[in-house]
This record gives sequence, C-alpha cells and structure tokens, in this order.
Amino acid sequence: MQPSETAVEPYVLSDIDGRGIARLTLNRPRQFNALSDEMLAALQAELDAIAANPQARVVVLAAAGKAFCAGHDLKQMQAHPDQQYYEDLFARCSQMMLTIQRMPQPVIARVHGIATAAGCQLVAMCDLAVASTEAKFAVSGINVGLFCSTPSVALSRNIGRKAAFEMLVTGEFIDAPTAQRLGLVNRVAPPAELDAEVQRLVDAILSKPAESIAIGKSLFYRQIELPMEEAYQLAGQTMACNMMEPCAQEGVAAFVEKRAPAWANSENRSS
Amino acid sequence: MQPSETAVEPYVLSDIDGRGIARLTLNRPRQFNALSDEMLAALQAELDAIAANPQARVVVLAAAGKAFCAGHDLKQMQAHPDQQYYEDLFARCSQMMLTIQRMPQPVIARVHGIATAAGCQLVAMCDLAVASTEAKFAVSGINVGLFCSTPSVALSRNIGRKAAFEMLVTGEFIDAPTAQRLGLVNRVAPPAELDAEVQRLVDAILSKPAESIAIGKSLFYRQIELPMEEAYQLAGQTMACNMMEPCAQEGVAAFVEKRAPAWANSENRSS
Amino acid sequence: MQPSETAVEPYVLSDIDGRGIARLTLNRPRQFNALSDEMLAALQAELDAIAANPQARVVVLAAAGKAFCAGHDLKQMQAHPDQQYYEDLFARCSQMMLTIQRMPQPVIARVHGIATAAGCQLVAMCDLAVASTEAKFAVSGINVGLFCSTPSVALSRNIGRKAAFEMLVTGEFIDAPTAQRLGLVNRVAPPAELDAEVQRLVDAILSKPAESIAIGKSLFYRQIELPMEEAYQLAGQTMACNMMEPCAQEGVAAFVEKRAPAWANSENRSS
Repeated sequence: MQPSETAVEPYVLSDIDGRGIARLTLNRPRQFNALSDEMLAALQAELDAIAANPQARVVVLAAAGKAFCAGHDLKQMQAHPDQQYYEDLFARCSQMMLTIQRMPQPVIARVHGIATAAGCQLVAMCDLAVASTEAKFAVSGINVGLFCSTPSVALSRNIGRKAAFEMLVTGEFIDAPTAQRLGLVNRVAPPAELDAEVQRLVDAILSKPAESIAIGKSLFYRQIELPMEEAYQLAGQTMACNMMEPCAQEGVAAFVEKRAPAWANSENRSS
Repeated sequence: MQPSETAVEPYVLSDIDGRGIARLTLNRPRQFNALSDEMLAALQAELDAIAANPQARVVVLAAAGKAFCAGHDLKQMQAHPDQQYYEDLFARCSQMMLTIQRMPQPVIARVHGIATAAGCQLVAMCDLAVASTEAKFAVSGINVGLFCSTPSVALSRNIGRKAAFEMLVTGEFIDAPTAQRLGLVNRVAPPAELDAEVQRLVDAILSKPAESIAIGKSLFYRQIELPMEEAYQLAGQTMACNMMEPCAQEGVAAFVEKRAPAWANSENRSS
Repeated sequence: MQPSETAVEPYVLSDIDGRGIARLTLNRPRQFNALSDEMLAALQAELDAIAANPQARVVVLAAAGKAFCAGHDLKQMQAHPDQQYYEDLFARCSQMMLTIQRMPQPVIARVHGIATAAGCQLVAMCDLAVASTEAKFAVSGINVGLFCSTPSVALSRNIGRKAAFEMLVTGEFIDAPTAQRLGLVNRVAPPAELDAEVQRLVDAILSKPAESIAIGKSLFYRQIELPMEEAYQLAGQTMACNMMEPCAQEGVAAFVEKRAPAWANSENRSS
C-alpha cells in the first residue's frame, strides 16, 4: 500500500533556527488548515515542545496555502454525531489555545489569508498578530447553525463587545485594517512586506532577555483577570523577583553606566 | 370626561411582522421618550412578551419624535423626594436593562436622535446599535448634580474607561462617528439610510437559525464575566450542546454537501 | 555646609487656587522626574493632603523640564540590591497609584513630554489625560531586563490587550495620536494649546457639584470590577443616595423650572 502524499506530510511544519525563532506552519492547505483532531494534536505537541525548549525565544505561527485557518474540520465533526466527542474536541481545542497563552515565549500570528471561526480564535489567542492586507477575519460558525462560542471567549477579550457580538451573529468578514482598528491584530502590511513586519516584532523580542519576557508574559495574563488591588500585589511581587534576576541587575547596571547590557540569553549582548 | 390624546396613546408601540421582526417604538415624543415609571413598565412588559414569543426573531428598538431617549423623567423623580422610591426606580430600570441582555433575541437600537443619561445606557445595553449621523450621546446626569451611576455600568462595558470617565464627569455630547470609534455603536448612516442599515443587520440575523442565536447570545454575556479558563469550559460545553441541535447538524451537513441548509426556524431555508 | 539647590527644592510643587484647582508638578527635571523614594513620598503626601481638603475640586498633575516622568529611579534601585527593598518600593508606588483612583477629586494628567515605565503607568492611572503632540509613551522596563509588571496593571485596563502586550515586550514608543486612538489619553493638543485643552476639562468639572463628582468617581471604579448584576445593584443604591443630596435635589428642581442650579460647591451657582 502506497501512502498518499498528504498522509505522510506532517500536519504542522516546525523549525527552530539558531537565533531561537520557532516557526510553526499549519500544513493542510487543501483543507484550509482546518483544526482536525490530527491538526490539534500536532499543534499541541509542537507548542508543548517549544514551551519546554530553553533555546526557543519566540514563536511565529503561520500557515501554508491560500487560507490561514478555517476553524474546525466540519466534515470530521459530522462523522462523529456524539456529544461526548464534541465536548472532548472543544476541550482539546481550548487546551491548545490556552497553551499559547501559558507558554513562556511570545507567539506571533502571521496571518496571510482568511481566518475563520476557531481560526480567528487562534489569531485572538496569540500574544501578537500581524496581518496581510489580504487577510480577512470572521467568526462564521453561525452560518452553519453553530454559534462560535469558544472563539467568542478569545474575541471578546480582544475587541469591544458590540463589535464582537456583530461578528458572532452576522458571521460576516472584517478586513485587516478593521481588525487592527478593533484590536484583533497589531499590525497590517501588504503581502510582500508581511514577513518583514513580523520580523520587526521578532527582532525586538530577541533583543530582550528571555527570562524577563517569560516572567512578564505570565504576569500579564494572570493580573488581567484580577481586581486591581490584587493585580498590583501580584505585579509588585513579580517585579521585585524580576529585579533580583541577573538579567535585570545587569540591565540596570548597564543603564546607569551608559553601556549596552551584556546579557547571555538575548541578542543584545556584548559577549 | 374626555381622555387626552397622550393619555390613551401607548407608551411603547409594538409590532411584530410575519418574519419575526419585533419593532418597539418609545412613544412619548414630547417628553423626549423619558423613562418614566409608565414607560419603564411598558417597556418591561413588551420585552417580556417578546422574550416569551418563539415567533420573535429579532428586536428593533426605535423611538418617536426628535429624540431617541432623554433618560429618566426628572419631573416625576422630583415629585417623589424619597430614597426608597429612587432605589425602587433604579432597580426597575436596571431590571429592564438586564432583560434586554437576557432575552433570547438580539436587540438592535435604532438611534435617530439624542440619547442621554439612561437613554445612552439603553443604547449601550442593546446587543447592537445603529446610529444616524444626527444622533448624539451623553451621560449628562452630572449636569443636574446626579452622576450617571447606573448608565456608567453599561457605558464602561462598551467603551474604554478614560473616554467613559470623561463623558460621565463632563456631561458633554459625543457625535455618532465618535460613538462608533469608541465602540458604543456598530454602524453610522445618514438619516435617509438609517433604516436600510438596520435592516442589513436584521436580515443577517434572520438568515441564521433562531436556536443558535439564542444559545450564543446567552453564552456570550455569561462567558464575558468569567476568568478565561472557566469561560472556555462553559463555552465548550455550550458549543457541544449546540452541535447536537438539529439546526447545527443540518447546517454542517449542508456545508459538507455544498448545498444551502434546510432550516425550519430561519429565512435561510430550502423548504 | 551649604545645601545644594536641588536638595532644598521640593520634589513636588503644589499649589491650590481659589477655584479649588490643585496643581501638582513633578519637580526633578534633571532626573526626568523619576519616581525615587523621595518623589513617591512627596507625591503620596500631596495626594493625601488634597484628598482630605474639601476646597480642592480637581487635580492637574504636570511635570517640570523636558520629560513628564521616566518611571522608577534606576540608580537608586541599583544601590539597594535587596528583594525586600524592591517589594516595599513597588508596594509604595502601587499605593500612590491607587490613591489617585481613590481620592474624591478627578485627576488629570497633563503630559507634555515622554512618559515611560511607571511614568506611563501614572498617565494610565489618572482619571483623565491630555497629551501634547510632542508627548510619547512607552513601558520600556524590558529594555533593561525589567518587565513593566506594575505598569501593565494600569495599561491593560486602559487599552486593548494586544496593543498593551506589544508595548510591554517591545518597549517601543507610541506617539500621542496613537495613545489617544488606543484609549490611553483623552485629548491631544499642540504644545501651545496644551494648557487650554486641560483647562476645558477643569472648567467642565468645576461647573458640577463636588459631591456628585466624588460619589460618581468612587462608584465608577468599584462597579467596573463587579459582575454586571452586582454592578447595577451598587450603582442603583449609589444613585438613590446621590438623588437625596441637596445638590441633586436643587439640580433637578432647576432643570424642571428651566433655570440655572444654585449650587454652593460648584462654579455653576446663582448665589
């Protein structure tokens, strides 16, 4: 039996270079990179591996083919008309989404094409997002009678509630400049400049110490869910710990001495 | 005794057409549709009736006369200088506002003129809002020494806190484009195109299955108040239930089979 | 021993005029008004004094020299390489920040130059902010390996989370129009018109009764952290109490009688 080419192709292409840039590429272009059981498992495995890899400094999440990601695999879902299967599916998907937020490295979505339903959620869950002017965004589950409930969790924490509600009940697309204005993406660039725009964020992150970025990312998402006074208590303790780290001691010393910091785990190093 | 014309006129005009579009019209134009005890009671009754009516698919909340709604009826409030009366008044008003959010149908504010104080709150509490270019918005209670406390609850959940605070302490108007930029309204149209713009949202909603819209609306406002992990648990369970509904099974099947879904409770039906 | 000129200069210049306008000016221009132990103590003392002063109606927080505020005093921090010192420092700083939000008078940041790290946090914590077109904003601690954890608490409650995250991990500046678009400042004006723009907000606040402003400010920040139903309960009770105050009774009476209110504690008085 000869395996088909798609069967042997990995669902997610993964590469990490010498600078610590991990590039993940959703790799089912003909299925618009739908989040099938297999795609979710592959993405979870890759994210877990990066989270545990001290060489990895930043993640760029991209996709192959015309679309970025079209959300869940409706054909596969149709083949399992079973509530337990669906509960498990959405739990695995939510777990993968939360992994993005919980891993120590910043994750940048590189959105070159359409991102719909859980594909739009994926963009919303990334720490940062850069979109091509040709990208479009929708939470379009309602068009098949399936309200984008799990995507709404991420979307409504990125953009205002009236705009989120409109997208969820109409299922309509918004273009990239609208997504930027609303807060769903950070930057928009023409297709030919998309990679350069992503790279600017990557380079900025690589020039900082990895420990400080990891401490800060974790703090950021924990404090945002707390009442303000508790948030300040947590943030103050976190910042005091951060200040005791060698990277901050060196950074502050370098600042006072008007020199570049000599950090080991950053590209902004003298050594 | 001949009743005056205003006495017999209903406070709220209510109409529901064959498509399931419920139109409510605040009908005290000479009082700028102030939310008097009578207006609140009429609005509560109409909203409750629509909430319980399975034929109703979407609500358009409009107003007669020059203004949309000028907030509470200050003359009536002055006639009851009694803290218990005021507590009860604000409790009834809050109840009506929460009903808008809790009813299964999306509610669209059609704002053709000024919306002030609790009138601005009404716009903020609707799921969607379309404003005329001639509409203006203010939380102007502070101008009579009465800080718009209850309106601030809705306003600060629609727009950023610095913009909300400015409106609340200055009492100043913002115009419709500013309201859109800040997130208080979804769309702005010239007066002659206001109804067409509202109708676009109505038509989009009518083309989806009512069950999915109802499931989603309820989930949306519950998840938004939860920590993210709990929000995902609730959303995942909700979406699994939604997927077991006939409308989603049919919608997904139609998608896979590349045909239009045959939904009973939607205008997007083959039958 | 002759004291140096900087040693005798107060850290914060404080002035309150006959209209109740309290002006605080950070006064270490050569240190870019860094929030040293001494500056924090001086600012805390001035804010506490204003909070307890019934003559004070509004606060304008400005700064001397080229910068608005460059955040913590890194040189002083370097001299105390002790986690307990840092925990105490951030606790004192958070306490000062929370005082701004808890005091009865609105606090307006007048931002003429750069505001970085805890200086940017200071802008975010003020109730209102007016920026010069020459102002710039950054949470730049990451540039010395110290993630701006405590500033992130304030920043992420002013602007969307993707924009906040980008600022925090890149440490890059945003200009004043961007800060306004994102929600960090209310208004932007050319340097020559900055004071006039601040004054417009001051005058608007002075024309309202002080009691209503104080009731409202306190309610605003408490309700924003509550679930919506609890927020409405608190806001309704607050508004009923506000309505029983002489200022609201007079304001509503004046409105009904179509005359200007005769308020004692406001510039909008007939007496």
